[in-house]
Amino acid sequence: MTGELAFIEALRRLPLHRGARGLADDAAVLEIGGETLVLTHDSMVEGVHWLPSQDMADVAWKLVATNLSDLAAKGAEPVGLMLSHTLGRDDDRFLHGLGEAMLTFGCPLLGGDTVKGDGGDRTLGLTAIGRAVHTPVPSRSGAQPGDTLFLTGPVGAAMAGFEALRAGTQGDTAAFRRPMPLLEQGLALAPHVTAMMDVSDGLLLDSWRLATASGVTLVIASEEVPIAVPEDRRADALRWGDDYQLLFTAPLTAALPAGAVPVGTVEEGETPLILDGLAVTDASGLGYAH
Amino acid sequence: MTGELAFIEALRRLPLHRGARGLADDAAVLEIGGETLVLTHDSMVEGVHWLPSQDMADVAWKLVATNLSDLAAKGAEPVGLMLSHTLGRDDDRFLHGLGEAMLTFGCPLLGGDTVKGDGGDRTLGLTAIGRAVHTPVPSRSGAQPGDTLFLTGPVGAAMAGFEALRAGTQGDTAAFRRPMPLLEQGLALAPHVTAMMDVSDGLLLDSWRLATASGVTLVIASEEVPIAVPEDRRADALRWGDDYQLLFTAPLTAALPAGAVPVGTVEEGETPLILDGLAVTDASGLGYAH
Repeated sequence: MTGELAFIEALRRLPLHRGARGLADDAAVLEIGGETLVLTHDSMVEGVHWLPSQDMADVAWKLVATNLSDLAAKGAEPVGLMLSHTLGRDDDRFLHGLGEAMLTFGCPLLGGDTVKGDGGDRTLGLTAIGRAVHTPVPSRSGAQPGDTLFLTGPVGAAMAGFEALRAGTQGDTAAFRRPMPLLEQGLALAPHVTAMMDVSDGLLLDSWRLATASGVTLVIASEEVPIAVPEDRRADALRWGDDYQLLFTAPLTAALPAGAVPVGTVEEGETPLILDGLAVTDASGLGYAH
Repeated sequence: MTGELAFIEALRRLPLHRGARGLADDAAVLEIGGETLVLTHDSMVEGVHWLPSQDMADVAWKLVATNLSDLAAKGAEPVGLMLSHTLGRDDDRFLHGLGEAMLTFGCPLLGGDTVKGDGGDRTLGLTAIGRAVHTPVPSRSGAQPGDTLFLTGPVGAAMAGFEALRAGTQGDTAAFRRPMPLLEQGLALAPHVTAMMDVSDGLLLDSWRLATASGVTLVIASEEVPIAVPEDRRADALRWGDDYQLLFTAPLTAALPAGAVPVGTVEEGETPLILDGLAVTDASGLGYAH
């Protein structure tokens, strides 16, 4: 077996909870009593998901933010966090950033596990538990032909921040270091959308995934996508992740909250993505592998 | 900051969910929608929690079993699992063992995250979600002077299994490789106990922890503890973990299900543990650090 996709395909052959949604969504949905919980887990690996030179407070913040972004995409409010921590350098800074993020997003600690590492690169994990405010909980698979594709805001700011951080220039690095999960927007959008996910791996790659899960074609015109970088970086901005905007589909007539930008349309078809008039035949090159 | 205890002490100064129980229990307790969920996370590190030569199917089994044992100690039935997996060698075997454990214990997959490793030692994590059958959910902190201390069965079998595995002899290694979480026993005991936890780090060390959480003294006579190894290994068996027996306190008159063995008494006092008539003044040397 090689690679993440093959592993996930094999996981799908194990006994799955109904709320696992076939392991094809951002989060699991657990109906319990009269409530609906949303559960998600994201891990970060040293050297893969963060630069070894980064402030561990920023790493902790991002670990919380990326998990809460998955809750946002399901229209869920945070309930609590389970931390999986490997002890290592700058744990004080890690805890400082963890506390900042927990206070900022109003999400307390529920528990977790702390283990000794072997001194090598570390893996840090977090399980976030949220409470869905609207049911059915938005999925990736509900986009309908005739819907419009929307984005909550510009992409590319995290890319610019990463490049400034790597180069050690004075550019604004906050979008990369301290992303903001769009929790309020997710709660407001959930009743209106037909499908929703967060843009974590690149707008085009995540659009491809939403289209594939929904069995539709997304038609996107590059120039309609709002970007936070100069025009000559447009192609890169559409392929870079980490901005955590929400990507969703809804009828054009939906009473959406202000701020959503239409970036494409949903059509019937076998091809997941038509970009600037051209059918995209495979997903490689659509997202930034980092 | 150095060490796990200092890290956990610092975590306690962050905003804690009420259900975190001050990070002093085996699991978190989340009341939601008229139900009570129990959540636990355990990680395993290559070279620390398993031998590099071990079958990854056994490692997967143990990852599931240790988490479900925490649910058992809270009288909770399994609902689902969130897997945090780092890709690496023998992922096929890992998935095989994962599937075996999930089928054996009736616990489906809810979701998780899969990441690429850097080729070094791996960290594998699992969050288990259970549903409490009895409330209040048993804690470590409820032992009352006058109660009796009970154990569900013998300790030492995992130690013997580990030693046989390490030595490559023909001894029975199943207790170490394939521990069984005592889910049915936990459900049956929950309504009767004043405190309960699983023995994961050694009977004496875990007794110390239960006593400390409850603010009582546990009085244990070594020779009353059932062991699964020859008499000359008694002292080691009481200090070795991984057997996942349940340790609990209850009034001697409680209508306990069959099979529980009294191993000590609960008294008022400042000293957590009196062993064979001697007050134990610190916890070092009570458990096996592995």
